[in-house]
Amino acid sequence: MMNKDEQFMALAINSASKGRYHTWTNPMVGAVVVKDGKVLATGYHHKYGDVHAERDAISKLTPEQLFNSTLYVTLEPCNHTGKQPPCSDLIIASKIKRVVISEIDPHGLVTGKGIKKLRSHNISVTTGVLTQEAKTLNKHYNFFYEHKMPYICLKQALSLDHKCSYPGKRLQITGKAAYEQVHRERADYQAIMIGSSTALIDNPTLLTSVKQDHPPIRIVLDRRGRLLNKNLALLSDNHAPTWLFTQNTKLTKFPYPPHIKVFLLHSGSLREVLQMLTQNNVQSIYVEGGPTLMKTFIEEKLAQELITYFSPTFLGNNALDGFEITENINLIKPDYQVLDKDIRISGRIDYV
Amino acid sequence: MMNKDEQFMALAINSASKGRYHTWTNPMVGAVVVKDGKVLATGYHHKYGDVHAERDAISKLTPEQLFNSTLYVTLEPCNHTGKQPPCSDLIIASKIKRVVISEIDPHGLVTGKGIKKLRSHNISVTTGVLTQEAKTLNKHYNFFYEHKMPYICLKQALSLDHKCSYPGKRLQITGKAAYEQVHRERADYQAIMIGSSTALIDNPTLLTSVKQDHPPIRIVLDRRGRLLNKNLALLSDNHAPTWLFTQNTKLTKFPYPPHIKVFLLHSGSLREVLQMLTQNNVQSIYVEGGPTLMKTFIEEKLAQELITYFSPTFLGNNALDGFEITENINLIKPDYQVLDKDIRISGRIDYV
Repeated sequence: MMNKDEQFMALAINSASKGRYHTWTNPMVGAVVVKDGKVLATGYHHKYGDVHAERDAISKLTPEQLFNSTLYVTLEPCNHTGKQPPCSDLIIASKIKRVVISEIDPHGLVTGKGIKKLRSHNISVTTGVLTQEAKTLNKHYNFFYEHKMPYICLKQALSLDHKCSYPGKRLQITGKAAYEQVHRERADYQAIMIGSSTALIDNPTLLTSVKQDHPPIRIVLDRRGRLLNKNLALLSDNHAPTWLFTQNTKLTKFPYPPHIKVFLLHSGSLREVLQMLTQNNVQSIYVEGGPTLMKTFIEEKLAQELITYFSPTFLGNNALDGFEITENINLIKPDYQVLDKDIRISGRIDYV
Repeated sequence: MMNKDEQFMALAINSASKGRYHTWTNPMVGAVVVKDGKVLATGYHHKYGDVHAERDAISKLTPEQLFNSTLYVTLEPCNHTGKQPPCSDLIIASKIKRVVISEIDPHGLVTGKGIKKLRSHNISVTTGVLTQEAKTLNKHYNFFYEHKMPYICLKQALSLDHKCSYPGKRLQITGKAAYEQVHRERADYQAIMIGSSTALIDNPTLLTSVKQDHPPIRIVLDRRGRLLNKNLALLSDNHAPTWLFTQNTKLTKFPYPPHIKVFLLHSGSLREVLQMLTQNNVQSIYVEGGPTLMKTFIEEKLAQELITYFSPTFLGNNALDGFEITENINLIKPDYQVLDKDIRISGRIDYV
């Protein structure tokens, strides 16, 4: 059984989740204003650039309603001016008497400062209510600010005999339901990454099925510059940004349209790529292959999650193998989801 | 919505299933006696050697109750004397006026003869009620009598990187729930088969967790006779019969205890082994490896079903690969079952 604080916070978390796919580099946040045991208003951060959850809820109420009320918010209120004025000031001005918080914001500009400000104005602050649940909302955002590296999820599609494609051919191994799931889950990430062979063979668009103001950036790792002068979907359509990472200066000089950005690598290592992406505030990446790129991510312990779609089929040994690794790893708390004839297996990677 | 006949037959099918694990080479059969729309008795074939389902139900009723009643039976009543006298005679003597049958018995001694006998005594016979459902009860028995070959199910346990073991080492890849499931599903087969390497490396007992009068025969394919003078569980314990198939005459001359039977192969082919097993009335085999044996079964199109247990782990490339095949195959209507951290994927094999 949840206590009262947890019940109201669960409602705030539920509100927060309505912002899914649309808060971009911002976290999903939800807020609930309660007085005399009754919910007066709920709010959430609708999308990047919009007002914060606290303001969304508070703006629905009169000063009289807000006076002496309690605010439940899934993430520590900010105390700095970004796209929006600080929420801490708004809470103080609203004469809210108590603030209940799930998660301390891991963003260095915020951490602890919002709480300190509120307490200095004699507002009672309670923390640690449904913290794990609230953290799950923003696992990419949290990971990014805690580790100063993007959260990496690897996705592969395999047959039961561990094959992923035929040489030089585009192949859709799994069925429609898995296809739709992939196009939906792409929208949870800020970027999608593939290697140059996958770009050349599959010529994918790497778009999502979710309408987004900020669709995931399409990243191709192309050290040698094999994509130069190639007619590929993600170089010609501008439905999402395309970023190329290369050591070939011809690519950096090529007159690409504005949706394409070329980054020149020095060492060419995956770690260098991720550092550049961190500097560009890319918090999460969905890596779709090929096998060599996946292998490198795991062998350098840079990936956090693995999703494997299995199709109940054997492609036979003319087909190419999925990636193999030297060491062994486990998936923590694996999740299984049946999608028509296929199955999706996902879990956090435990580097044993 | 089921009609009346289907409703009573569903009850008969449910009764039949109570004999699971215990009817050995006999099919599971259920029977229901109905009069004036009311169920008077149910019965089933409890275990090999016991009375048939029809007699089990009929014996619970008086001649008065049976007079003019309807008998629902999942399989065509027999008309020959085996371990038990013919059911057709009993039905006629009971003055039952109508018999409803799901499945015509594929066993050559029975097919059509029971129905013919009943009709010749002016008993009304209805067939084709819930036939598919009834056939599912005895898919091994049906396959055996339709194809004159045992029904073969291959079972493998794999990691996500398609590894099945480390060289020369016994390895339990999957967890407790999968282990228990395997020990239960073994009991659905009349035999369990492994290759000699699996016997030598794993030294398995190949027993079931179900108490059975006729536990599955433990079959080892040992063409070269590598098991000679080896101290293995299935050669020393007599909890179930052990059958060795070999081309090595030393094995045939070895003074094994009575639970062990040695078969001398001529060509040594898998087909020859299966023919010998067919002659010995082995209707179904659960094949547990190793990979080479599985591969042969599939490449010779001798296997009907594949069960793969996946553990959410990568063993790394020091481990040995699961079997690969030349051609491609699909699983028809795959079934997925989560067992703790592992997943069981099963389906009938479609040789495309």
